Amino acid sequence: MIVVMKSGTPAEEIERVSQELYHWNLIPEKCIGQHKTVIGLIGETAIIDPGQIQELSPWIEQVLRVENPFKRASLEFRHGQPSEVLVETPNGVVAFGQNHPIVQVAGPCSVESEEMIVETARALKAAGAKFLRGGAYKPRTSPYAFQGHGEKALGWLLKAREVTGLGIVTEVMDTADLEKVAQVADIIQIGARNMQNFSLLKRVGAIDKPVLLKRGMSATIQDWLMAAEYILAAGNPNVILCERGIRTFDQKYTRNTLDLAAIPVLRSLTHLPIMVDPSHGTGKVEYVPAMVMAAIATGADSLMIEVHPNPAKALSDGPQSLTLEGFEQLMQEMAPLGKFFGRWTQTPVTASQNFAQTRDRSLVAGVSHR
Amino acid sequence: MIVVMKSGTPAEEIERVSQELYHWNLIPEKCIGQHKTVIGLIGETAIIDPGQIQELSPWIEQVLRVENPFKRASLEFRHGQPSEVLVETPNGVVAFGQNHPIVQVAGPCSVESEEMIVETARALKAAGAKFLRGGAYKPRTSPYAFQGHGEKALGWLLKAREVTGLGIVTEVMDTADLEKVAQVADIIQIGARNMQNFSLLKRVGAIDKPVLLKRGMSATIQDWLMAAEYILAAGNPNVILCERGIRTFDQKYTRNTLDLAAIPVLRSLTHLPIMVDPSHGTGKVEYVPAMVMAAIATGADSLMIEVHPNPAKALSDGPQSLTLEGFEQLMQEMAPLGKFFGRWTQTPVTASQNFAQTRDRSLVAGVSHR
Amino acid sequence: MIVVMKSGTPAEEIERVSQELYHWNLIPEKCIGQHKTVIGLIGETAIIDPGQIQELSPWIEQVLRVENPFKRASLEFRHGQPSEVLVETPNGVVAFGQNHPIVQVAGPCSVESEEMIVETARALKAAGAKFLRGGAYKPRTSPYAFQGHGEKALGWLLKAREVTGLGIVTEVMDTADLEKVAQVADIIQIGARNMQNFSLLKRVGAIDKPVLLKRGMSATIQDWLMAAEYILAAGNPNVILCERGIRTFDQKYTRNTLDLAAIPVLRSLTHLPIMVDPSHGTGKVEYVPAMVMAAIATGADSLMIEVHPNPAKALSDGPQSLTLEGFEQLMQEMAPLGKFFGRWTQTPVTASQNFAQTRDRSLVAGVSHR
Amino acid sequence: MIVVMKSGTPAEEIERVSQELYHWNLIPEKCIGQHKTVIGLIGETAIIDPGQIQELSPWIEQVLRVENPFKRASLEFRHGQPSEVLVETPNGVVAFGQNHPIVQVAGPCSVESEEMIVETARALKAAGAKFLRGGAYKPRTSPYAFQGHGEKALGWLLKAREVTGLGIVTEVMDTADLEKVAQVADIIQIGARNMQNFSLLKRVGAIDKPVLLKRGMSATIQDWLMAAEYILAAGNPNVILCERGIRTFDQKYTRNTLDLAAIPVLRSLTHLPIMVDPSHGTGKVEYVPAMVMAAIATGADSLMIEVHPNPAKALSDGPQSLTLEGFEQLMQEMAPLGKFFGRWTQTPVTASQNFAQTRDRSLVAGVSHR
Repeated sequence: MIVVMKSGTPAEEIERVSQELYHWNLIPEKCIGQHKTVIGLIGETAIIDPGQIQELSPWIEQVLRVENPFKRASLEFRHGQPSEVLVETPNGVVAFGQNHPIVQVAGPCSVESEEMIVETARALKAAGAKFLRGGAYKPRTSPYAFQGHGEKALGWLLKAREVTGLGIVTEVMDTADLEKVAQVADIIQIGARNMQNFSLLKRVGAIDKPVLLKRGMSATIQDWLMAAEYILAAGNPNVILCERGIRTFDQKYTRNTLDLAAIPVLRSLTHLPIMVDPSHGTGKVEYVPAMVMAAIATGADSLMIEVHPNPAKALSDGPQSLTLEGFEQLMQEMAPLGKFFGRWTQTPVTASQNFAQTRDRSLVAGVSHR
Repeated sequence: MIVVMKSGTPAEEIERVSQELYHWNLIPEKCIGQHKTVIGLIGETAIIDPGQIQELSPWIEQVLRVENPFKRASLEFRHGQPSEVLVETPNGVVAFGQNHPIVQVAGPCSVESEEMIVETARALKAAGAKFLRGGAYKPRTSPYAFQGHGEKALGWLLKAREVTGLGIVTEVMDTADLEKVAQVADIIQIGARNMQNFSLLKRVGAIDKPVLLKRGMSATIQDWLMAAEYILAAGNPNVILCERGIRTFDQKYTRNTLDLAAIPVLRSLTHLPIMVDPSHGTGKVEYVPAMVMAAIATGADSLMIEVHPNPAKALSDGPQSLTLEGFEQLMQEMAPLGKFFGRWTQTPVTASQNFAQTRDRSLVAGVSHR
Repeated sequence: MIVVMKSGTPAEEIERVSQELYHWNLIPEKCIGQHKTVIGLIGETAIIDPGQIQELSPWIEQVLRVENPFKRASLEFRHGQPSEVLVETPNGVVAFGQNHPIVQVAGPCSVESEEMIVETARALKAAGAKFLRGGAYKPRTSPYAFQGHGEKALGWLLKAREVTGLGIVTEVMDTADLEKVAQVADIIQIGARNMQNFSLLKRVGAIDKPVLLKRGMSATIQDWLMAAEYILAAGNPNVILCERGIRTFDQKYTRNTLDLAAIPVLRSLTHLPIMVDPSHGTGKVEYVPAMVMAAIATGADSLMIEVHPNPAKALSDGPQSLTLEGFEQLMQEMAPLGKFFGRWTQTPVTASQNFAQTRDRSLVAGVSHR
Repeated sequence: MIVVMKSGTPAEEIERVSQELYHWNLIPEKCIGQHKTVIGLIGETAIIDPGQIQELSPWIEQVLRVENPFKRASLEFRHGQPSEVLVETPNGVVAFGQNHPIVQVAGPCSVESEEMIVETARALKAAGAKFLRGGAYKPRTSPYAFQGHGEKALGWLLKAREVTGLGIVTEVMDTADLEKVAQVADIIQIGARNMQNFSLLKRVGAIDKPVLLKRGMSATIQDWLMAAEYILAAGNPNVILCERGIRTFDQKYTRNTLDLAAIPVLRSLTHLPIMVDPSHGTGKVEYVPAMVMAAIATGADSLMIEVHPNPAKALSDGPQSLTLEGFEQLMQEMAPLGKFFGRWTQTPVTASQNFAQTRDRSLVAGVSHR
């Protein structure tokens, strides 16, 4: 259920209404938009009469029920306003969201050595990426396959972060590793295979770190939003959804079927930012550029692209990895299209600027505090 | 198996080699490219030694096996050169292919009346479409649902063609109707449900009319190319492939899953032109614009879009149909993107110009003669 | 909509009510059960008030709406009574249905020669099969694959029928071939790829010959019943449904996923008899016996099993074909289970007995007349 | 790689060969069959020449490579001999495996109260079940849905175990809860959503407790066996595979598609025991009995059936739960079929007998020690 306040409602009145709602055993969550403030209500709203809430204040414009099973993740919950996820990196705050430039996240499947990851990070930064992705803990189908360098790899990622200032995106697979991962990651990734690992979702929901939630291989869009809801419900408002291909009957030429229609569908259902991973989505490097273009045209807020200094010798996912040069070239190819859609930026805002920005937005859901 | 001739081979030599190959019980099919001519060979090539063919002429550069089960449809068969399908319409020849502007095909699911289809055709033409689509015979899940106005509707389509000069795309469902449909259609559509109706494929392969082959709901890309191969093998080189969404586990928000990665995959496998149908692909009009943009960015050669003067009262597929105004607006939105990719044209070439063009290309596979 | 008549209603009263309903522009279809007679109504029933029909006669017990989109195929349309499909063969009438023994249909994918098919038929008959299956026209993914011996093969099937007295099941792919096929076939098969070839469905619905309707590769159970409805609506009440596996994401070890739960689901939705084809369902001969046992235990009314005298040399589907000895052995293995469920018979009823039986049932939908 | 020892090889020789293999940096795992002993080798076997191993002893009959990516789970690894999982319960040891009676595991989705679970357990025991299933920690799609009573519910399960002597099967979702769950469970369940939660698999692989591994919703059979391999590789040989339906395009009448062909496929690939869960497999109680019969006929070693004293008021999965009476009746219906296949037992072996049995088998992989 959401309470839409009239434009110009005094802050104290909003506060008063929120306090009242607490007494009804509801948890009010404010979303301050450009013109209006909306109060989302969590709790046993099914038994509540909207008319009664309406009477709480003459400043209440409307009381609406959220029809979807996902509440905090729903677009209605923010009255149609997209959320943004702001991530502080050494190079400044990077914003994910519909009103921001497309954010490039790139890097190898696995972090293979300090040298390799630092070299990669340098090239990615030079090409314009804002985040380095790389797996320290790798979910592998076979127990005999390389499982990632673990803690050591976390250290190498930290090194790459120091050297380049790029933000770090890395996956957590086990609640036991969460603390260690959270010390290094600027964004914590939940992989496709763990999308419905509800224990893990609750834990990452309880910490103060943005979360990248990959779609499960056979997750419906509703399943996926319900998984995001787990994180939001646990108190973490900073969730980015990542489409990475679903499993269908045709696996001959591509590893998965990249479901780009998920983007407009999500736009009609949720306020959360959307990332697309064409590398896993297709599984073949030769199809990545076309799907990058498609993702940009469909309105993706961010791209995740696998890049490896030597794909032929990659410990995992070589066939879907671009070379460093390949990535640089692809960035040059996508830049004009990004500009065409008004979603490209050359000059990142500086750290200090961002910090101020962050402050201003601190009342709004969607801010990450370190 | 294909025979690549050296650049500059005299026409008579190509002719001589072709004649020789006839004696080997092979059917040679010439593809004259910009620099080279390639001779595709159909028949029992498995038992033939490429070395022996090589000895036929010093002008032979190379003899190659086509590894895929589809031969004529394969990219190798044309030595990497895309084919184009040229369709004569009253307004001039329209070319489908990678080196041509994106062709818009639009119209209602069903042809409901003469007035309705003529009105629609006028609006579509004004907005820039080159083809009118509309079903006279409709494949419907229920025998009690409207099955199309049949022959009467074919007459109405003919009227719309006369009035607007637009080309006509309409579906054939039964070999018994093929002659009637072929008299009206400039392009004959094979629907998704009939993609593996091999009898029908053979029949449309035997006539001199371009064919639009929609992908079956659960057809792999290889199945689809094999279906195209049926048409090509029967002698009709003018096949356009249309991606229209596949059936997956998620049908809550979209009717199908539009598989846009099929475009780069097809590009790597076949020379045939590619159309995308975002209307069936999503089943919801609100998702069509985003997928149109995505299809253009992915490199589609043509778009099929459902448009109805009054979607709320459409006899079929209302929820996925744009209004006439909606289509006009979408055309305006997609034009800049089409131009961005260098695949948009305002001024159609005139009929006479086209005719000359057609003549020149008459030696090349891919020309339709009325 | 269905009208349930009270037990003991005189035949003239049923006739009178039916006549009345004609005047309402409804087509009444009688189903005479053991205790009650039910009149199914086809036409614009949505606008009719059940109360008004109720007033037509004091012998009317109840007037009910059929909620499903499939009407004649629905279980309600026969008020919960299963239908039976009676097929006359030289060896006597064979009944398909819940209250009859399991019917074995067996034979090769393709009819390869007269000798081969007669030899096969003899062995099948000796082992206890009632029908010989064999393709004269073969739907093949590739135009270069063996397409069946066509009309010649129909002649060979006729020969096998004469020699053994087995009924013939063979596929029709093209409306143009229907007459020829119907002259040979005792049951006409519609293949999975043509399940939604609505033109073909209408044609086989218009002739007086039982139809075996295979489930499409990605057909939902509702799609499938709607396809059956096409045949029923065209006037042919003799439809047998055949589950043959659906297409899913896992195709490594089996060709399709045999959906045995379709049997209890269909039982709750339709009165039509159900066949299972474990050969196509799995695609591997080693998995056929286990799935035969499963199909019997789930309540299948009939089994279709691929058998070939020399699977290693089969022109098609060798890997999923049993040898003649293999089939005989499997029949011996399944017999005790068939007996366990009270659905096995050694001694076929003689032709004359059956004919009498047929006569008695001639008022009931479900009888085939030659 | 496996080493097959000749029949009659002295135990000391097997020991000696094993010791030698240790020096090659391989881990030998003995499987003592009725006639032969097989030594499975884990490690870098790719670089080893089978001929060299052959020379280690004249008692070596054969050295074979395991072709599948799953090694310990493969049928070859036990040279074709099925494994059995022996579970000690207060009522005695229960054996899961091809040469044992079908084991019934039944109970509610969630443990709702002590009274409810004890009442249920009593009825299940009376009806012939050997294990009580019930969720203390529940994986739910929505964070707002009932998540299980957690630790409290574990206590109630322990009570039900004490009262009835039934073994307990309950799910673990989080590595943090494993210890607590292991103290109560006789078999630890890994749910479908966690099938590729590799961290969790490694942990349950490291403890001495049988594991029930449910198939993931979109897991291929190979994925599933690789997940089992994680547990086996971590040292726990006691894994039972549970087919519970896969996600396909048809979800109208059933929740999932129960893939019964997985049973013969698994039999050809692995030695592990197989359970079938028709309750999740169909999602509707009315289809459960038919699929139970099918599962028995296909050769399932065990059945998992949802039972609830009052399904209409169940906190989760009511529509797929049988009542206590319904379960009792189903047991009576399945008993004759179980006997037909020689896989039914009325009289459980006593605890002391079992213990002796366990001892004897203690050298064989597949025994669980508390």
